[in-house]
Amino acid sequence: MVNYPAGQRPHNNSHHINRSRQTIQYGSRGMSLEDKINKSNQYYRNHQIAIIHKKPTPIQVVNVHYPKRSAAKITEAYYRHASTTDYNGVYRGHYIDFEAKEVKNKTSFPLSNLPDHQLKHMQDCLNQGGIVFLILSFKAHNEIYLVPFKDLIHFIQSSDKQSVPYDTIKDISILIEEGYAPSLRYIEAIDQYLERIESEVNP
Amino acid sequence: MVNYPAGQRPHNNSHHINRSRQTIQYGSRGMSLEDKINKSNQYYRNHQIAIIHKKPTPIQVVNVHYPKRSAAKITEAYYRHASTTDYNGVYRGHYIDFEAKEVKNKTSFPLSNLPDHQLKHMQDCLNQGGIVFLILSFKAHNEIYLVPFKDLIHFIQSSDKQSVPYDTIKDISILIEEGYAPSLRYIEAIDQYLERIESEVNP
Repeated sequence: MVNYPAGQRPHNNSHHINRSRQTIQYGSRGMSLEDKINKSNQYYRNHQIAIIHKKPTPIQVVNVHYPKRSAAKITEAYYRHASTTDYNGVYRGHYIDFEAKEVKNKTSFPLSNLPDHQLKHMQDCLNQGGIVFLILSFKAHNEIYLVPFKDLIHFIQSSDKQSVPYDTIKDISILIEEGYAPSLRYIEAIDQYLERIESEVNP
Repeated sequence: MVNYPAGQRPHNNSHHINRSRQTIQYGSRGMSLEDKINKSNQYYRNHQIAIIHKKPTPIQVVNVHYPKRSAAKITEAYYRHASTTDYNGVYRGHYIDFEAKEVKNKTSFPLSNLPDHQLKHMQDCLNQGGIVFLILSFKAHNEIYLVPFKDLIHFIQSSDKQSVPYDTIKDISILIEEGYAPSLRYIEAIDQYLERIESEVNP
């Protein structure tokens, strides 16, 4: 999400969004985590495996210009903070809800990456029986994990740490295999997670 | 959704979005359907009954200005057409997905209100086991219905009509009670719909 705080981009004051960035991509090398997820979601939708979308970035529109012969043009607007997670949808009757995060840190996942309102939304969805998780990319390890929110929040509530150690993430999570299509096989990781939940209920 | 086609607002070429519109509301009289749904969703979330949100309006950002001491300002952007429905979420383990429509027509619901990509999205979610419907407000009758997508698409596919007669809507739908809090008791209508599905499976 493009959401730079004040003054963080001093070099050019006006900036055109590069829309051709995504056009030439061979395999998943060099793709951002968001690109990988979006392309995988498209694959899953096209093959009727799961219907999951990224939500649009919330924008507060202040001023709109209505030219006579062309589309309405927004001339003043601001990025708002999302009140939920970025992705949700449905897979075999299950409500799916997740947030994606990239970590540069090698040894832990800093909890400052998860604002309170996002934790609350994830807890609320979990309470309603949703399948809630993070897709967490540890760039230094070249690994991407499905981190079940249920286990993550259990760790957060039972420790006073400001970050989750890498080893804890490995313990509670499911490694997501990467491939060509889909580039991120995260539905297979959901299947493993569903089996885990099932075996907890009926051991 | 504010999405005026070209030249449809000839009176003022520049228009400030009125954000104070929602501040003073006594009861649900005079509220738009969208306001009623948003307020009901808020009620359902606050009472942990269901976690359902309206998705942000999709906006294509073209130009952003980054002032040194304040928030990033979008200076050129355009409304895009939504590729899904406006509302989704989770209720007691069920994936919920719906679109809201207001009809001025007294005798039928014109199908031109439902673009093909929206029908496809709703069919896809239904195939995955989601609970999919319209919230349809017949203003002339002062009635709001939960229209199950499953029955709606069955009518559409078995007739060559360009609109759904009011009597058909009454036949296949569940009337949504209106009240003070929530103003639109549509979760009760979902409960009735779930009972109907249940009795179809186990008659």
